[in-house]
Amino acid sequence: MIILVDAMGGDNAPEDIVNGSMDAINEAEGFDIVLVGDSQKVSRIINERKFDSPRLTVHHAGDVVTNEDKPTKAIRGKRDSSMVVAFRLLKENKGDVLLSAGNSGALMAGALFIVGRMKGVDRPSLPAIVPTKTGSALIIDSGLNTVCKPVNFLQFGIMGSVYMKEIFNVDNPKVGLINVGAEQSKGNDLIKQAHSLLTKSSLNFMGNIEGKDIMLGGVHVAVCDGFVGNVALKLLEGTAIYFFSNIKRILSKNFLNKIAAAIIVKDIKKFSHRLDADEVGGAPILGVKGLVIKSHGSSNAKTIKNVIINRAYALGKTAILKKLNDQFKDWEVEDIEP
Amino acid sequence: MIILVDAMGGDNAPEDIVNGSMDAINEAEGFDIVLVGDSQKVSRIINERKFDSPRLTVHHAGDVVTNEDKPTKAIRGKRDSSMVVAFRLLKENKGDVLLSAGNSGALMAGALFIVGRMKGVDRPSLPAIVPTKTGSALIIDSGLNTVCKPVNFLQFGIMGSVYMKEIFNVDNPKVGLINVGAEQSKGNDLIKQAHSLLTKSSLNFMGNIEGKDIMLGGVHVAVCDGFVGNVALKLLEGTAIYFFSNIKRILSKNFLNKIAAAIIVKDIKKFSHRLDADEVGGAPILGVKGLVIKSHGSSNAKTIKNVIINRAYALGKTAILKKLNDQFKDWEVEDIEP
Repeated sequence: MIILVDAMGGDNAPEDIVNGSMDAINEAEGFDIVLVGDSQKVSRIINERKFDSPRLTVHHAGDVVTNEDKPTKAIRGKRDSSMVVAFRLLKENKGDVLLSAGNSGALMAGALFIVGRMKGVDRPSLPAIVPTKTGSALIIDSGLNTVCKPVNFLQFGIMGSVYMKEIFNVDNPKVGLINVGAEQSKGNDLIKQAHSLLTKSSLNFMGNIEGKDIMLGGVHVAVCDGFVGNVALKLLEGTAIYFFSNIKRILSKNFLNKIAAAIIVKDIKKFSHRLDADEVGGAPILGVKGLVIKSHGSSNAKTIKNVIINRAYALGKTAILKKLNDQFKDWEVEDIEP
Repeated sequence: MIILVDAMGGDNAPEDIVNGSMDAINEAEGFDIVLVGDSQKVSRIINERKFDSPRLTVHHAGDVVTNEDKPTKAIRGKRDSSMVVAFRLLKENKGDVLLSAGNSGALMAGALFIVGRMKGVDRPSLPAIVPTKTGSALIIDSGLNTVCKPVNFLQFGIMGSVYMKEIFNVDNPKVGLINVGAEQSKGNDLIKQAHSLLTKSSLNFMGNIEGKDIMLGGVHVAVCDGFVGNVALKLLEGTAIYFFSNIKRILSKNFLNKIAAAIIVKDIKKFSHRLDADEVGGAPILGVKGLVIKSHGSSNAKTIKNVIINRAYALGKTAILKKLNDQFKDWEVEDIEP
């Protein structure tokens, strides 16, 4: 398996992207990595570590898509950027999975225009995994689609269920619709129509759920539009920071508390890692014809290493594209222009 | 000051409502309470505690608005219900503040139809206070208005600012618009229009904020529609449960950890109280002509006591209705039918 890594995308590129890639090769087997980006800069980072493995190669791309670039314009205009070149390699089957921590909108645009939308899918979606009381749950959509039609919620539910089956081995994933109350009559018209579509589907649909239920582990797939999903994810991130800063304050309050801290610090750290985006922060764009994985913009070397091993390589081993294709091949949806 | 308490509203009514009212009188001065509800049931709870104070009286109402009742129908049809009778007393100036833990929709309908919308306000709103890294922030709207127009976001910002000034003594409250990114170009059309209105206003508007920023304390007033606000609040509630159940698991894991627990348990409990809805779970419906306070449905005696003292009595002492009226008296908005 060949994993194409956009070496120039993300706040900490290229250093952390390149280092994370080397770490991934040191830690796991089964894949090669092609680093796409400025070959001089990338090679310098590799040489600094005196890293030498036939599993790591560099493919030159002289330009970069920045966070300031307009997505569609960047994908169409910056033909020599690391992201666009990586997309082209994926399209030409010179790689199996593409990974980038760069401009999310551009990554989405590239996935749509270069890789192409999967037949039958109206809106591809970016999901996000969150830890829950009983395991993990997928929030889908997590920000790509801030305005949705009822059918999008249904398709998010289907894509999310396939993903949870393939990557988390959940047998018959429980799907919930994020709403302002559990009763069927709750929410606005859009949500009520989505509820009706999900009820009629063959998904394991549990009905409406509230924000609370996500964390209590009632469902495996929490369906929402990208506006709600993004606010929820960012709120979770902020809440984790708030919590741990308070715990830290308590544990350093006085001499006795510091003794307590010494006893439980390892357990607290282990718990905080569960909530750490650097541990889990990568997800595929579902609903396009290739495996395109978004790692969060502030990815550091640890994130990149984890996302390569636990998302890019893990997804590359599954038959997720075929499974998704089977779900959607008979759907008829109108063309979209993102 | 007379506080009208709907003795029959809420999951734990009338027992906890009546007990919380007695506790409030025991703990604080400055107000009398009229318990509105089934006089036989209410009196029995009072007599069981041998409670006797001229500050507590009972006003009989034989019927109850339940959570299953349709809001408007209940307010128009159940004329002898504790909620409707309490509203009538408020309207007739036989009380200064109304407090209920009952059916939210019905409380909103009563506030609109019996108390009446404040001139110039398009959509009254229910805010909610959340703890943050630097103090407290108000999420407005927290669930009453699941579909909003741009002007509603602006009015939420104004009402929220007045509330934070009056109750939390925040001088020039910072207002943020909850969005999927900080840049002005982010979000859907509705949010962009709201952003534009807020920018032109005289509010201390900080621009877009993400879910994360709420918890980090960047703003005092976080403006959003009731769908987003409700999901956020419930998610926060679920995250708190998730977090403390993990802390509890860590602190009881083994003998040494239990020693650590003994040292820090008081500090942890104090922190968890900050996030406890029973400590802070009450808020006024802003934008109507009277002081109507919603306490959450599962309010227990402690909640009711706190909401009476820290919300009903505290708000009753302020000039919030006049302040809000000053803000909106020159606005022209179309009539609404909730």
